[in-house]
Amino acid sequence: MKISIISIGDELLKGSTINTNLAHIGQKLFESGILPINSLTIPDSEKEMRDAFDFAFSLCDVVITTGGLGPTADDVSKDIAASYFGRGFYEDEDSKANIIERWNKLNRKDFPARLLQQAKIPEGAEPIKNITGTAPGIWLESEDPDGKPRLLIMLPGPPSELRPMFDDIVMPRLRKRIENPLKSKLFFVAGMAESIVEEKMQPLLCPELSVAYCASPGNVRLFLSSADNALLRKKIEGVQKIFKKHLLPENCSLPVEHIIGLLRTKNLRLATAESCTGGLIASEITSVSGASDVFTGSVISYANKVKTDVLGVAPETIENFGAVSAECASEMVSGVCEKLAADAGIAVTGIAGPGGGTKEKPVGLVFIAVKFYGELVVKRYNFSGTREAIRIRALSMSINMLRELILGMN
Amino acid sequence: MKISIISIGDELLKGSTINTNLAHIGQKLFESGILPINSLTIPDSEKEMRDAFDFAFSLCDVVITTGGLGPTADDVSKDIAASYFGRGFYEDEDSKANIIERWNKLNRKDFPARLLQQAKIPEGAEPIKNITGTAPGIWLESEDPDGKPRLLIMLPGPPSELRPMFDDIVMPRLRKRIENPLKSKLFFVAGMAESIVEEKMQPLLCPELSVAYCASPGNVRLFLSSADNALLRKKIEGVQKIFKKHLLPENCSLPVEHIIGLLRTKNLRLATAESCTGGLIASEITSVSGASDVFTGSVISYANKVKTDVLGVAPETIENFGAVSAECASEMVSGVCEKLAADAGIAVTGIAGPGGGTKEKPVGLVFIAVKFYGELVVKRYNFSGTREAIRIRALSMSINMLRELILGMN
Repeated sequence: MKISIISIGDELLKGSTINTNLAHIGQKLFESGILPINSLTIPDSEKEMRDAFDFAFSLCDVVITTGGLGPTADDVSKDIAASYFGRGFYEDEDSKANIIERWNKLNRKDFPARLLQQAKIPEGAEPIKNITGTAPGIWLESEDPDGKPRLLIMLPGPPSELRPMFDDIVMPRLRKRIENPLKSKLFFVAGMAESIVEEKMQPLLCPELSVAYCASPGNVRLFLSSADNALLRKKIEGVQKIFKKHLLPENCSLPVEHIIGLLRTKNLRLATAESCTGGLIASEITSVSGASDVFTGSVISYANKVKTDVLGVAPETIENFGAVSAECASEMVSGVCEKLAADAGIAVTGIAGPGGGTKEKPVGLVFIAVKFYGELVVKRYNFSGTREAIRIRALSMSINMLRELILGMN
Repeated sequence: MKISIISIGDELLKGSTINTNLAHIGQKLFESGILPINSLTIPDSEKEMRDAFDFAFSLCDVVITTGGLGPTADDVSKDIAASYFGRGFYEDEDSKANIIERWNKLNRKDFPARLLQQAKIPEGAEPIKNITGTAPGIWLESEDPDGKPRLLIMLPGPPSELRPMFDDIVMPRLRKRIENPLKSKLFFVAGMAESIVEEKMQPLLCPELSVAYCASPGNVRLFLSSADNALLRKKIEGVQKIFKKHLLPENCSLPVEHIIGLLRTKNLRLATAESCTGGLIASEITSVSGASDVFTGSVISYANKVKTDVLGVAPETIENFGAVSAECASEMVSGVCEKLAADAGIAVTGIAGPGGGTKEKPVGLVFIAVKFYGELVVKRYNFSGTREAIRIRALSMSINMLRELILGMN
């Protein structure tokens, strides 16, 4: 299977939107052993789209497009594709019902008839159900002039719509068509830098094994693949021996999921107290469905008065050591565990910048305290980078510190 | 000038790296009135690169490549390009000196001779100085078989190297070649669906004006451009008349920045109380640098006990109406404003799913209460989609509700 991905939208070429869909699709394909032949990014324009189809189908038998399926005038992908393949349209009843139902839920009046454009599907194509938006995707099988099969898959541009459609509908259907799927195994390594993971992998490398690393905040994805199943099994054992508790368990792709699972098993409760991370840790925890089993809540104490009045940090602690100090972080975590009736806690206080730094307490200085039953660990970090980078580093470090404390890795 | 951008690297197609270079280059070009014709992403492979050159130069006279100029075995871009254009190599003395100097600074021994590969420049091409790395860029002018001029610009992949080279050397040289640069204006429209924005724009449309829309959670980017400066000024006035307070002010690109600015001017304080959004609103607020001027903090009250004990919601309210109710949302926002000493507040309670829904209170039911001084507004929403989509919709709706309350738009 040779795949090309065409991303459609002026905004991608104008630089007002970063193309995260390509990375998402590429990653999922690669996990099934497919490296796309190429990807094109084109404006919402007929000539460029026709040129792109010509080019992509000259090299590939499957083309996936993203974007341009919405209800506005610049959403022209579907019309151009239908014309390219010489197809008319039919109205899909399910898609129409979905569009009307979503509009009614908004409690707005005057349904704009033009929204129904989205229910038009090229003749001979199937709609792909969109559970988070109105524009269905399109699955269009055809043949080129020589009779070779061609598959066009069109998906909407918003990542929140595209991802469930691609992951739950498109990818399973594509996977069935792959002839010799590579055997592969994906690990998540928590609490270790990518360069260290790479170094530790050296003894396992051999020509029959393909290894890819991908660092994201909080963990490193370690991807092994091989056409040789027995070899792969041996290498998987090797990885487990090398990384031990740094590997997340099977059902987790995020360290925070692991924490929630560990606490749920023990029927324990979790709470956080955040200053410079400002809610990032709580929103990471609550992004996991079922977090309510263990998470009681969080106090975001941006103002010092909230630290003292709500969390019970002693005013003298702030006076003597400052709000950004190991002492304050420790009292925050103890305070939030008590106030929010939790057995495990995380507290973060620091200077995310770009303003607010001093010589003694520069931008990037962050104290993280974690608590699990009677044990309390507090660490000092000097992160670098932008405000966003510092906040994200503090988020992933704090989650990792709590995970290691619960697992007794210290 | 017709420009194509070719991004080279397996990692982009495997999804282990998100292509931020394209957005950077696209934005800079577009600010000078150029929308690239297309962009290609290809693996580090000769066949795909030759196909991409054929395709790009068949449509464009300028091709910019990124990636594949480094010293490792998969950095093959330069060799393939030189062979494609039938050129040999010369060694550039400045580039060689830069490579050796940077190595010496690292205080490592055994200079790897292969690093000097990077100083090889195709015959007839100019090096583009790299001030943050070792691989120089390449500026190669040539002619196609019909004598039409072709320009190939090759830049290294790491954004920290590419950006200064593109901004300070490549872009100024390209700008000199642009004949009629476009004038443009970017607006952010808050609290309005993309389809409504487009409908309201209808009376302003004319062939000399190019209009683009791009929806993101919380606002719609509305981009106008025209070669006719006087016309553009008139259309800008038209947009201001149509959208009035829905337009964010000049210095804001996010509704939350506007809220922070409004409250800062009035010396007022903001706090939030979150249940199903679980910290998303607080982290959106604190992502803005200087948020600490107005934001005192937040209480994430996932457990009902935190709603009653910390926020002061009456236990009878939860007993009689449930935690997901207009009554509870109202008491949450009043409670957090009092406890966290704030003049403005947001409270959200709802069911983000996928579990936890009932017939009366289905997944997606969300109550949002906002408060500004004595005024309190509470609304009921039925959002659809995944847990993530529901949380993000609740986030952007709540920010918008508070912005409209402060501006007296209700």
